[in-house]
Amino acid sequence: MRRIAFLLIVVATVAVVIASTALTAGQADEQAAPAFLTQIPAGYRDWKLISMAHEEGNLHSLGAVLGNDVAIRAYREGTIPFPDGTIIVALHYRNVPSEENNKIFGRAQSFVPGAPTNIQFEVKDSTKYAATGGWGFGHFQNGKPADAAFMKPCFPCHAQEKAHDLVFTRYAP
Amino acid sequence: MRRIAFLLIVVATVAVVIASTALTAGQADEQAAPAFLTQIPAGYRDWKLISMAHEEGNLHSLGAVLGNDVAIRAYREGTIPFPDGTIIVALHYRNVPSEENNKIFGRAQSFVPGAPTNIQFEVKDSTKYAATGGWGFGHFQNGKPADAAFMKPCFPCHAQEKAHDLVFTRYAP
Repeated sequence: MRRIAFLLIVVATVAVVIASTALTAGQADEQAAPAFLTQIPAGYRDWKLISMAHEEGNLHSLGAVLGNDVAIRAYREGTIPFPDGTIIVALHYRNVPSEENNKIFGRAQSFVPGAPTNIQFEVKDSTKYAATGGWGFGHFQNGKPADAAFMKPCFPCHAQEKAHDLVFTRYAP
Repeated sequence: MRRIAFLLIVVATVAVVIASTALTAGQADEQAAPAFLTQIPAGYRDWKLISMAHEEGNLHSLGAVLGNDVAIRAYREGTIPFPDGTIIVALHYRNVPSEENNKIFGRAQSFVPGAPTNIQFEVKDSTKYAATGGWGFGHFQNGKPADAAFMKPCFPCHAQEKAHDLVFTRYAP
């Protein structure tokens, strides 16, 4: 009987050790997980306008930057750093000439959003994304997130905008 | 007594005639009033994004086009003509290089909204603006409406976009 009890204790201890090891491994996995978004935050297309973004160089991009309510309040009140819960999204499109508008205007002056290129996010969560300045970065093409290698330059580049809490975009009045 | 009563009737009649003439004159004034906006619709900066607008030529303009709920619903459902109550606003800014962004990106590629230039509206009211295709046009600079002469080309130019109910901007997905 004592022998059985001893064996049970051994089995239980082993089970606890295995479970606790598994838990630690799980936590380690989570910590090692890429600090970027893998899912598109819901409802972003209904958010309010922060500003526009027009990139030339190799990009020829025309974009709009929207924010959720936390983001918009922070921008309007000039709150820096942005509070946890802030989400900023940039909707990017090709900057293409509008033949239709140009015909009416009588000259080549009008550019409009062409095909969508990508959607980028910055999500503020100072705990979850502590390793990247409190921001989780996201880049989605056809609804699919970019991989870890693609996302690697996001943080070091945004980190150069430290004075504006790693956010390039200013509010357009 | 009869004489006083008669005089009172005369006075009353004259008063009614004067009042009714004044009313008619007022109505005539209203009908002759320029069919464009003289007041900025409230709350427009909180409306949802329709698209962006980038104009070169002499304009060098970067803009965002927003819509009230009636406008957004019509755009998303593809409702043409737009229903009464639709309001579309274009927020225009100078398209200026961002020295700050370019320094970080290492090349001159980034343009952002500079000084605001004007805010333009299209308000759908098929009764009130029957003479201009059901649309009331608005152009505001520093909060002040443009005058009748300035507004005159709005309708004939927009009328060329008849297939899209006098609205140039398409919805950016």
